[in-house]
Amino acid sequence: MKRIILVLLLLSACKKEVKVEAPSYPNPVKETVIDGLSRPWSMAFLSETEVLLSEKDGDLLRIDLTTKEKFKIKGIPEDRFDTLLYEKAKYRPLTFPPSLPDGSKITYNAGILEILLHPDFEDNRQLYLSYVAESNEGSTTKVIRAELENDSLTNIRQMFLATPYSDGLFHYGGGMTFDNEKKLYITVGERIFSEIHEPELPVAQDVTDRRGKIYRLNSDGSIPEDNPDFGPDAIPGLFAIGIRAAQGITKSPLTGALWFSEHGTTQGDEINLLEKGGNYGWPIITSGGYRSKDYSPPTLEGVTYTDPIWYWPQTVAPTGLTFYTGDEFPQWKNNIIVPGLSRGSLWRVQLDGQTIISMEELFMNDRQRSRKAVQSPEGKLYLLTEDLADRTNGKIIQIKPE
Amino acid sequence: MKRIILVLLLLSACKKEVKVEAPSYPNPVKETVIDGLSRPWSMAFLSETEVLLSEKDGDLLRIDLTTKEKFKIKGIPEDRFDTLLYEKAKYRPLTFPPSLPDGSKITYNAGILEILLHPDFEDNRQLYLSYVAESNEGSTTKVIRAELENDSLTNIRQMFLATPYSDGLFHYGGGMTFDNEKKLYITVGERIFSEIHEPELPVAQDVTDRRGKIYRLNSDGSIPEDNPDFGPDAIPGLFAIGIRAAQGITKSPLTGALWFSEHGTTQGDEINLLEKGGNYGWPIITSGGYRSKDYSPPTLEGVTYTDPIWYWPQTVAPTGLTFYTGDEFPQWKNNIIVPGLSRGSLWRVQLDGQTIISMEELFMNDRQRSRKAVQSPEGKLYLLTEDLADRTNGKIIQIKPE
Repeated sequence: MKRIILVLLLLSACKKEVKVEAPSYPNPVKETVIDGLSRPWSMAFLSETEVLLSEKDGDLLRIDLTTKEKFKIKGIPEDRFDTLLYEKAKYRPLTFPPSLPDGSKITYNAGILEILLHPDFEDNRQLYLSYVAESNEGSTTKVIRAELENDSLTNIRQMFLATPYSDGLFHYGGGMTFDNEKKLYITVGERIFSEIHEPELPVAQDVTDRRGKIYRLNSDGSIPEDNPDFGPDAIPGLFAIGIRAAQGITKSPLTGALWFSEHGTTQGDEINLLEKGGNYGWPIITSGGYRSKDYSPPTLEGVTYTDPIWYWPQTVAPTGLTFYTGDEFPQWKNNIIVPGLSRGSLWRVQLDGQTIISMEELFMNDRQRSRKAVQSPEGKLYLLTEDLADRTNGKIIQIKPE
Repeated sequence: MKRIILVLLLLSACKKEVKVEAPSYPNPVKETVIDGLSRPWSMAFLSETEVLLSEKDGDLLRIDLTTKEKFKIKGIPEDRFDTLLYEKAKYRPLTFPPSLPDGSKITYNAGILEILLHPDFEDNRQLYLSYVAESNEGSTTKVIRAELENDSLTNIRQMFLATPYSDGLFHYGGGMTFDNEKKLYITVGERIFSEIHEPELPVAQDVTDRRGKIYRLNSDGSIPEDNPDFGPDAIPGLFAIGIRAAQGITKSPLTGALWFSEHGTTQGDEINLLEKGGNYGWPIITSGGYRSKDYSPPTLEGVTYTDPIWYWPQTVAPTGLTFYTGDEFPQWKNNIIVPGLSRGSLWRVQLDGQTIISMEELFMNDRQRSRKAVQSPEGKLYLLTEDLADRTNGKIIQIKPE
């Protein structure tokens, strides 16, 4: 694909033809860097060649991408809970079906979720971990802050707990990112499999219920004074409501704005721009359908809803999105890269301000269930994939120029 | 977006640093070149700056893209028939509804269709025109060959007539292209609005019926001896069957293979690779749905069907596709460009052999009902658009680097 451009030098001191290699338009190809991972969910770079990786069904690992060595991080809290633990101890009845209407087996969502470094990690060694915590009332999303010392988590403090605990094993959310003011944002799903189980005031619309929301906290877990006002009874820390199942949330390198992906039902998968005080509508309005044909949402008085920037006509199950700022694919500069669990392809989203002007689906002939796209400090693009047929066959894949 | 690469010249005679402009990764933008067209359908380049353009609701025009002058080509056959003529003279009852189930008004498909130059046009001045011809039994697709002299069509000869004439005003097809052996290919739609009007052996599956097929002819209209064998009763010239509504057909500059777009119902819009003797399945199998929920297709014994290379989950109404081989967008080299009537965006399809490896939807924030993408002799990309609110507001738009 490389082209040669002929450059005629018109320098008085030196008149001759010189051939110069021009940059080509590289095609992206996949290269497996690490395999044998138990459903990797998130990855944070300690350096260009060393990462912390959270396994949904496994552990928090430190991995050397060069030597391929994996080191288990000690000190994960005792209340961590995942799908494997659930399947080992079936002590709790479930209020949702064991398989989907189309007969496909349900994969529960419990486990270790996002790993995120404090913006000042190099100074304070602080990191944030979101995971599914259990109690005898069920499970829910918890966020802790810890310090990393000698491959152990120390000085652990709880930042957030999405009570109530409940027995649904879905839509914990757990996405986290920092904005330019070092505020911490956390996504929490609504934890309900079918809308027919919604209370009269749906969970994601109830500002007294922690589920189905997006939160904004100071890095120490306290509540910023300039958070939006959802009324006197609202849960502290609320930043946006009406969320069904949002995992991926990321910051625009150009504007500092936050973008998040969301799973719908019967399509309705979305890309959203996070707005202070926004109500993203679930389950009152949706760009998709409902699991139950019998469900008709209530009408809420005097409520305005924030539309998604984009929704897909097909099921994508978009997850950990990121902005690409690397140099290997100059034509992707500042595009959003969105992986999907369902189609297993990568979506490249080109923006003009907050308007999507083009969208490309990549790797259409090589679909792998993809959890998160992550960029290295030097701008290399990585992808975390999993394989439900072999839940220990998760991979770190690098997207490289061909 | 331009980048500067530093080139260190290591020529003994001349050691100094020289800055060289590297090609950038240009964004495509639209520039209206010509407007005031009556639903332009096809365009053929007489030179880099002069084209022949067919208006579905109007005339065959010669247009100077530089001076913007339009010249009407005389000698269009008297039996040409279009939607405006139909609406003027409502003398024929219709067997299909005046509006779609969603209430949107039907736009009839009759008119002038493809304009195509003979591969040896510069020597023989021959061109091919497909259009909707009428008789007192109704209308159908006709292809003529003519010579262009002084803005007139002379020495007109009928190449093909898709009898029977019928009163449906849909799916005439009319797409035409030449392959590397100078064989002429013609697409003909099945001319039925709803499947409930299909005979027991559906039109597109009946090799004794000219509708719903793709044809291969010699440039003089005679039948090549190496055409596929569809049996003793088959219509002469048949190359593929099972076609619902195909308009765009184009040749791969790399392989010489022919690709065509096809409209489905309730999604089912497709990109297909043309295979000798292929049966593309309509209406027995479809990647979309049927207009009538009451329709269940018959089962045909011993028939194998050719799958599409791609079908969209959303309605696109893909039309006149083309391969891009220009230099303005190096990253698009040899991609298929597919416009759509329904979404009004441009789709860029990247192939690895016959496999689609990525697909990009362009101009998502500037949707215009688009009929055909055409490349100039020097590789400039043009788009023909129409506006149903003002049927005389059709345009020739150039896609240029920003």
